[in-house]
Amino acid sequence: MPRDLDALLAACADRLPQLETQRLMLYAGANLPSARAIAAYNPALSAYPAMGPTGHKEQPDTELVSELETFASQAAMSLFGAAWAEVRLASCTLANLAIFHAYCRRGDKVLAPAAEHGGHLSQRRGGTPELAGLVVEDLPFDRRNCQLDAARAAEMITRTRPRLVVLGRSVMIKADDIAPVVSAARAVGAKTLFDASHVLGLIAGATYPNLFDAGVDLISSSTYKTLPGRPQGLVLGRNPDDAMALRNLLDTRMLANYDAGRLPSLAVTLTEAQTGGREYAARIVSNSAALHRALVDAGLPVIGANDGEVHTHQLLLPLSLDADPRTVMLALQAQGVLIGTCVDPSRAGHQALRLGTQFITRRGMEARDMTEVARLLGDVLRVGACGRLRASPVADTAQMAGRIQQMLSKKKPLGSG
Amino acid sequence: MPRDLDALLAACADRLPQLETQRLMLYAGANLPSARAIAAYNPALSAYPAMGPTGHKEQPDTELVSELETFASQAAMSLFGAAWAEVRLASCTLANLAIFHAYCRRGDKVLAPAAEHGGHLSQRRGGTPELAGLVVEDLPFDRRNCQLDAARAAEMITRTRPRLVVLGRSVMIKADDIAPVVSAARAVGAKTLFDASHVLGLIAGATYPNLFDAGVDLISSSTYKTLPGRPQGLVLGRNPDDAMALRNLLDTRMLANYDAGRLPSLAVTLTEAQTGGREYAARIVSNSAALHRALVDAGLPVIGANDGEVHTHQLLLPLSLDADPRTVMLALQAQGVLIGTCVDPSRAGHQALRLGTQFITRRGMEARDMTEVARLLGDVLRVGACGRLRASPVADTAQMAGRIQQMLSKKKPLGSG
Repeated sequence: MPRDLDALLAACADRLPQLETQRLMLYAGANLPSARAIAAYNPALSAYPAMGPTGHKEQPDTELVSELETFASQAAMSLFGAAWAEVRLASCTLANLAIFHAYCRRGDKVLAPAAEHGGHLSQRRGGTPELAGLVVEDLPFDRRNCQLDAARAAEMITRTRPRLVVLGRSVMIKADDIAPVVSAARAVGAKTLFDASHVLGLIAGATYPNLFDAGVDLISSSTYKTLPGRPQGLVLGRNPDDAMALRNLLDTRMLANYDAGRLPSLAVTLTEAQTGGREYAARIVSNSAALHRALVDAGLPVIGANDGEVHTHQLLLPLSLDADPRTVMLALQAQGVLIGTCVDPSRAGHQALRLGTQFITRRGMEARDMTEVARLLGDVLRVGACGRLRASPVADTAQMAGRIQQMLSKKKPLGSG
Repeated sequence: MPRDLDALLAACADRLPQLETQRLMLYAGANLPSARAIAAYNPALSAYPAMGPTGHKEQPDTELVSELETFASQAAMSLFGAAWAEVRLASCTLANLAIFHAYCRRGDKVLAPAAEHGGHLSQRRGGTPELAGLVVEDLPFDRRNCQLDAARAAEMITRTRPRLVVLGRSVMIKADDIAPVVSAARAVGAKTLFDASHVLGLIAGATYPNLFDAGVDLISSSTYKTLPGRPQGLVLGRNPDDAMALRNLLDTRMLANYDAGRLPSLAVTLTEAQTGGREYAARIVSNSAALHRALVDAGLPVIGANDGEVHTHQLLLPLSLDADPRTVMLALQAQGVLIGTCVDPSRAGHQALRLGTQFITRRGMEARDMTEVARLLGDVLRVGACGRLRASPVADTAQMAGRIQQMLSKKKPLGSG
């Protein structure tokens, strides 16, 4: 029996407290904006379109929207060292699609991360690039180090002379070495695009290397993972001359109206990242390292950055071949533990759980809390004979709920004053 | 000197009262959701993705998002008589793009409204269809009646055998006769898509003919014009078999994440349209007819539905060839009167102001108030020697602001209890 509107809205109203007090949120692509950023969402700015270039909109009385576009763009430019920013796209997938159309022609060759190495549907063969008629080939990957194989990628670029090279993946446990790739791409006149959706907040906080320093031409990103914003897309560019092609595409063929009501929230989130972004990123990375150690200590297999390397927000928990990833995910959900599944890029044909520390870090957890998080994970998962994981059938749901709530009740969210 | 964040947020906070109390909002593509729909926006539902089909999402703990997708889809299906609905797209332009990709192949021929007849960039030659590699030809238009030339369009379909026929425009002063077009399209195996962005609320309220009754295969729409919702896109279909192609495209290549936080608002808006939609649409149409009469009485040239025809929310005010439309729009904006510009589809090479009554109707204005609206327009515009309009240089800004505020202060918004 479906719920009626009132019941459904009541359930919706309960969702924020649930996430904040009753879930161990370890999904690697999740975050909540600050209370100020949430409050800044402005439905009056969504009341009618503001089409066309900043400062020269088709609609009357849109000066405030233009001002917000300028403010948010400049905040993003200053935070990431970009020459220009485009803040109107609804998601990173659409940002990638716009980039494919703006900088490539139908039939062009593109190199991109493969699905089996953590490439996202908006980047990879069989996905979004094909909507623009692009011919995608998989970039080489170093399974042992769980990283882009930069040397072989550079060779491949030199050999195949693509129009565009897409970097960044959904599964990133540490930084890639992109310098050889950027240099090879420049030599053949190819552009480089880094999809920074997962690590944008870490770049803002300087624990992940700045991509423009590394020579990348374009950055695309979503805004709700390590950057704690409302969901939307973002494009950043290093070369001022590149802006026009993208904007012309958006204004004449792809964007038309967008929801300008979210711009004040983006402005708040980017401004907060300018002041608090370094501390937040440092805490994420330190929590990832601490959780990595604690998981090892708890006897769980884990794939993360090595000693001496800097973590991202992500760690991978390799799954047994005979454990269905979705079944494991749902078993953990039943215990109040939210984790996503992914390919295990270190081992062909295998799957993993992908966890992220960005949400619990923002929820106020510190390195010393990671022992209890690892213990909890140890109680909902068990190590099979192959040394990989499956769900534990013996975990006690009521007891687990109590432990999660108790753990969270002691924590004070970052930025709550 | 750019404003800082605090000043900018203060300006944003002032925007809703401005629109409600200080602007004569006659922009034809504008609306505000009800207070309940605005309050229903839920940032916690935006905290992480809910990718994939309803009920089978990739992410954990997304059952509520699936339930909202189902509720909003079923509300839309019941309101418009559709066999299926897709509620995840961010805008109608993206809905149109998705439809082009899902139901056409690169190189396919599409017939669509021309720019000079009010075709939108997401429909027309040179616009969004070309992103999907489609070859677009202009549909014939009857300038005298400001309508699709249905007989010639049917002939053209029979002769050119397109894959898809796109109906609906940004400029629509009355309903088109689409029956001959639908019938000709069926005969050659072409699908028909009606972009109902402007008239969706009028269809919900049954003053504009139901498009599925007329045999259309697909409806795309935005949700913030005559339907008073938050901005997003909507696709509706008559044939259950068509749903899969669109959803498969979205799930594997085009959508990835979307902002599920807006679904509760959509659910509220659609539910409200089920109960109050008929009265609202009837009032819009009656206000359009009354304003049409009042403008004629005030001596202004106006293009709208003829006697015996049903109006939409739109009326056109033809501009003098020597008046720059943007300059006129900005002159009116300076007087607190918000109206957009458009082509004058009745006369090649000419421009017009396009006004809509949907916003002022929701603001509580009734047919008897249209005399004062027409008088106000008569004071900010003047009729040139050619019988067409330009901005009046003598309007008194302070006095105009007072008149607008006084007119609005007496009105009680629809649905405010």
